[in-house]
Amino acid sequence: MKPFMDKDFLLMGEVQQKLFHSYAENQPIFDWHCHLSAKEIFENKAPENIYDLWLTGDHYKWRAMRSCGFDEKYCTGNATPFEKFEAFAQTLTLAIGNPLFHWSHLELQRYFGIKKVLSKETAEEIWNEANEKIAAGGFTPRELIEKSNVFALCTTDDPCDSLQWHEKIKNDGFSVKVLPAFRPDKALNPDSPVFASWLSDLEKAAETKIESYEEMCQALCKRMDFFKEMGCCASDQAVESVVYAPAEKNELEEIFKKAGKGEALSEEELNKYRYETLLFFGREYFKRGFAMELHLGAMRNNNQRKFNSIGADTGFDSIADPQIAFGLSRFLDNLDKDGLLPKTILFCLNPKDNYVLGTMLGNFQSSEAKSKIQFGSAWWFCDNYEGMKNQMTTLANLGVLGAFVGMVTDSRSFLSYPRHEYFRRILCSLVGSWVENGMYPYDEKALEEIIKGISFDNSKKYFLGEG
Amino acid sequence: MKPFMDKDFLLMGEVQQKLFHSYAENQPIFDWHCHLSAKEIFENKAPENIYDLWLTGDHYKWRAMRSCGFDEKYCTGNATPFEKFEAFAQTLTLAIGNPLFHWSHLELQRYFGIKKVLSKETAEEIWNEANEKIAAGGFTPRELIEKSNVFALCTTDDPCDSLQWHEKIKNDGFSVKVLPAFRPDKALNPDSPVFASWLSDLEKAAETKIESYEEMCQALCKRMDFFKEMGCCASDQAVESVVYAPAEKNELEEIFKKAGKGEALSEEELNKYRYETLLFFGREYFKRGFAMELHLGAMRNNNQRKFNSIGADTGFDSIADPQIAFGLSRFLDNLDKDGLLPKTILFCLNPKDNYVLGTMLGNFQSSEAKSKIQFGSAWWFCDNYEGMKNQMTTLANLGVLGAFVGMVTDSRSFLSYPRHEYFRRILCSLVGSWVENGMYPYDEKALEEIIKGISFDNSKKYFLGEG
Amino acid sequence: MKPFMDKDFLLMGEVQQKLFHSYAENQPIFDWHCHLSAKEIFENKAPENIYDLWLTGDHYKWRAMRSCGFDEKYCTGNATPFEKFEAFAQTLTLAIGNPLFHWSHLELQRYFGIKKVLSKETAEEIWNEANEKIAAGGFTPRELIEKSNVFALCTTDDPCDSLQWHEKIKNDGFSVKVLPAFRPDKALNPDSPVFASWLSDLEKAAETKIESYEEMCQALCKRMDFFKEMGCCASDQAVESVVYAPAEKNELEEIFKKAGKGEALSEEELNKYRYETLLFFGREYFKRGFAMELHLGAMRNNNQRKFNSIGADTGFDSIADPQIAFGLSRFLDNLDKDGLLPKTILFCLNPKDNYVLGTMLGNFQSSEAKSKIQFGSAWWFCDNYEGMKNQMTTLANLGVLGAFVGMVTDSRSFLSYPRHEYFRRILCSLVGSWVENGMYPYDEKALEEIIKGISFDNSKKYFLGEG
Repeated sequence: MKPFMDKDFLLMGEVQQKLFHSYAENQPIFDWHCHLSAKEIFENKAPENIYDLWLTGDHYKWRAMRSCGFDEKYCTGNATPFEKFEAFAQTLTLAIGNPLFHWSHLELQRYFGIKKVLSKETAEEIWNEANEKIAAGGFTPRELIEKSNVFALCTTDDPCDSLQWHEKIKNDGFSVKVLPAFRPDKALNPDSPVFASWLSDLEKAAETKIESYEEMCQALCKRMDFFKEMGCCASDQAVESVVYAPAEKNELEEIFKKAGKGEALSEEELNKYRYETLLFFGREYFKRGFAMELHLGAMRNNNQRKFNSIGADTGFDSIADPQIAFGLSRFLDNLDKDGLLPKTILFCLNPKDNYVLGTMLGNFQSSEAKSKIQFGSAWWFCDNYEGMKNQMTTLANLGVLGAFVGMVTDSRSFLSYPRHEYFRRILCSLVGSWVENGMYPYDEKALEEIIKGISFDNSKKYFLGEG
Repeated sequence: MKPFMDKDFLLMGEVQQKLFHSYAENQPIFDWHCHLSAKEIFENKAPENIYDLWLTGDHYKWRAMRSCGFDEKYCTGNATPFEKFEAFAQTLTLAIGNPLFHWSHLELQRYFGIKKVLSKETAEEIWNEANEKIAAGGFTPRELIEKSNVFALCTTDDPCDSLQWHEKIKNDGFSVKVLPAFRPDKALNPDSPVFASWLSDLEKAAETKIESYEEMCQALCKRMDFFKEMGCCASDQAVESVVYAPAEKNELEEIFKKAGKGEALSEEELNKYRYETLLFFGREYFKRGFAMELHLGAMRNNNQRKFNSIGADTGFDSIADPQIAFGLSRFLDNLDKDGLLPKTILFCLNPKDNYVLGTMLGNFQSSEAKSKIQFGSAWWFCDNYEGMKNQMTTLANLGVLGAFVGMVTDSRSFLSYPRHEYFRRILCSLVGSWVENGMYPYDEKALEEIIKGISFDNSKKYFLGEG
Repeated sequence: MKPFMDKDFLLMGEVQQKLFHSYAENQPIFDWHCHLSAKEIFENKAPENIYDLWLTGDHYKWRAMRSCGFDEKYCTGNATPFEKFEAFAQTLTLAIGNPLFHWSHLELQRYFGIKKVLSKETAEEIWNEANEKIAAGGFTPRELIEKSNVFALCTTDDPCDSLQWHEKIKNDGFSVKVLPAFRPDKALNPDSPVFASWLSDLEKAAETKIESYEEMCQALCKRMDFFKEMGCCASDQAVESVVYAPAEKNELEEIFKKAGKGEALSEEELNKYRYETLLFFGREYFKRGFAMELHLGAMRNNNQRKFNSIGADTGFDSIADPQIAFGLSRFLDNLDKDGLLPKTILFCLNPKDNYVLGTMLGNFQSSEAKSKIQFGSAWWFCDNYEGMKNQMTTLANLGVLGAFVGMVTDSRSFLSYPRHEYFRRILCSLVGSWVENGMYPYDEKALEEIIKGISFDNSKKYFLGEG
């Protein structure tokens, strides 16, 4: 029996172990898509206890606890911090095979030096031990980031964001690059009740009047220029799917006008608006060298009752199952035929789409970058052992795995960097087992290039042109 | 080489074996969804030969035989019982990797004590040996059920069913609980040629006049009350997908009227009728504490010629591929927002939907039960080694595996209980291998709770509130 | 560590090795679907160098090179043959886990006796060694085909093709059967700009006037008769999905007339035309004993820019994701209910459809052939280790694996026969591991029948009625 989560966790054979310890373990992290708060990084407050770090904002944990029959009281409600911690510990025991089990124990091991297994029985002991360590210091956001060997990270920012915290962090001399990333979701949802107020924020941010679709685009260009000055190299958009719906300029202006008056938009109008606005962003990203991330396939806020009581991003999202191939093909081709397709990273939430994405890439590669079009790593619900293995095996079969830009945490938590370690272990386990099974030669030079590349080098080169 | 199907069948490592033999093998069975006939259980007739038990009603076997080029004569036709048995034996040899190979040999081993491999060569010998054992007794429905260590089973019953056989079984003092389950498929298909006659059966069963949709619902409520009195704790509905199509009461009355006159219904009308009727059932199940099973994704009676000659449920069904996420989300949310969502078990026939279901659960969990919303075990075409492993791995990754209510036979055969054994072996193989590979600690107490829970305890608690 | 790609490549256990070396390795090849040129086989020209064999027409290799950031110059452009070869060598190192890595090295081993690993470092050495061997002879199309132990192959031919090269090959006394196969894609695309000129070719080939849909069908029947005379036993059609759209004769004539005038057809018209024309082909194939292959799920020519500059089949195709179950069921049933369903082989490009196809088969089996309806082997993007394992495991679970007609190269290259070896290794690895794990008995006779059957015997029997 292999010991539980020891130094060779997930690494069954000698080559797997060698690859991880020699080429992956000590590579820095370029976390090019996450949801950390630049403000919190700047303010750099120490947490009070492990509850602050673990259970105040983590909808993964809440979902598991609810699935275990724990009342909302123990998730977002008014139970005491320790009661919540204990409920989570109890949940974890039954959550066998869930990535939370591994993530939580990796975090206990790496940040707290705690090798015990968390359960109802050990909850109090671990609670005390962890909180003592926190009290002893070393757990502020910046300390956690530095301890995790992070080279750079990209936050997720609205076009209207002033990026003041990014600037302050830079001026403060923090050793890790904290770069903004452009996330214009609000521009893509003219049917949202907050669209009007967002537009007025955009007017302020861009210091301009916005009375037309055209002017909105101009304002957004101004913001992209500003983001670029601030070091931005990536953008992100979340869409259930890209629906092919080309439209003329005047149609867009009409739709924009309707939206401005708060009139309801038809599905066709929304599709046209979104398709053309995504094209607009794609073209502008290309001009500025921003990579375009597309996160496809989430179906959000499924539970009205909970949305009304505790809001978005609280653990009531799930996976959609639209047809994605045709619209995505037309979208990328539309940009490519004008020579304006930016570097693009396609993420799917529904694993049924892995083969569609894995082959879509190949339609639009070019010499602008090694795998200019990337298949994003297994994400959110797929960010688990099988999900990551499937995504990498699919990419290997359909593209060039050695050119992969690898993992991102996509996380709101300062303790989530061990997900890179988890990913690298799975990568080394996969590649190492191919070597051990005679499916790839034991060529140390090639393997070093591949493992270091996927762990870090490729993303640095892809986003920053360095390396 | 591991011996063929010995006591450690499917159990490769020591922990796997230990888990199975210590915690799974001897647990009772709660078969909470099957298609056994209460009448046959009551009448308790002995079969004449293994043909009676194996080949008179099993469309799985017929499908395999047809795929092997055997004429209908050997399936539902007029070949002799032994000719059919021999044709099946011959089929089995080529059906390598098919669950039928394992199910059949488990049945030969467990009920007949026959450890030989069935093939054309051994067919006659095994035919004789099995039939001698049958002649010697111990093969009546009740004997088979008791021998299989069944604690309780839920049949599948139309709302009009008098449940007289269930009553007689109970009065007869049978040691195993034989509970009815509510399956109102006929209420959901107003376009069926049998709808009118079914309505008139319902009038009789509910002792009421039905002249409106409203009155049909009242009659169904009466039947649900009666089912509850008779121990019913579960309902089942088979739908290709849940299409979101809310409708007003008066629209439903109009559609009902049209259906009553035998007029054709549009797809939109059918969708509205079905959506609202499913909502009606959901609310009423909640009030009575019935679990709501949804079996999604079957496409039935694909072969008209065969349907016309030998009818339904004869092996001409297959897997549909609709989009299911949105409609299902809206349906469950609609019930949940009024606080009327019953315990729900979602089954998908198309494995592309595993991740959709696995994440849908998490949107609607609550403290009413441990995993109030369940992901049903791999079913029908997916009820095989890979299918069950995939379903459990998906559930583990996306939910809380330890709260899973586990396996059902979904079968018409009194010999099908070894499918629970098959499931438990796969469960122990999966969980045991995680422990052996250092992915979960070797914590005997936790493992016992998990394995016993999934094998039996969880379902007893979930359906009956006991345990 | 297992040596890299030695004689037991992919065969981990003793039974796996025994099955391959005893029953698979030396079986002949019936390559019943490929894209080889009969003209080239007849002309039998020797290649100049390995570039001619490897890089002049292989869009798999170009895709990989583009994904590695190589400019079009190195794919279809004006780089020197060696520069292109070197670029491919460099690509291969990073293409770890891609079937190209295995295919290329199998080809180097089997045809050139080169056991070195191809990389940037070894590119020149291997280039020289391979070219010396080519210069020494033995690399003409016919030599390569014979060396590969091919029993017969089916090309892919337009109904208008004169089949003159097939005739010349036969008259020339080539030991391998080179059979035509009927591929009427152009008949299925009345919206194509080449439809009119294709119709006029058809008029010439069938020596008849075509002024109606009816007359087109009659001309096609003539061609099918001719193909049959020339030994044709298979047809092939590529469709994204079969859309259920029944139409009357007069509607078809109207659509045909519109198409003839070059008028645009609506999607509904196209669907009707295609559905009924596929039915027409199905019925006529049945009458002539042609097997009907359906290749579902490709989305072609996604990149307009590349299509305009370098044309079709250059590596810009990918996987579509339509719903396929309903239309396919109605199509097959429509033929079956009239007793006119031909032997049918269903291929899907999107692995999400594996379970749909695997169960669709069972709806329409009959005693006309062992598995009259077949699930085609993993194809194109799925023709890789995992893809083939998934397809075979799915078929085993849902049908009768022992009746499977096995592998085809589907290739344009005379060096692609090792893909049969690759397939057989995976087959033996899969089946052998079941035996090694106690999931199927070690019955040599049964295993020999199964492995030889899938490798060769089943297809000979299925297509030619021999065996």
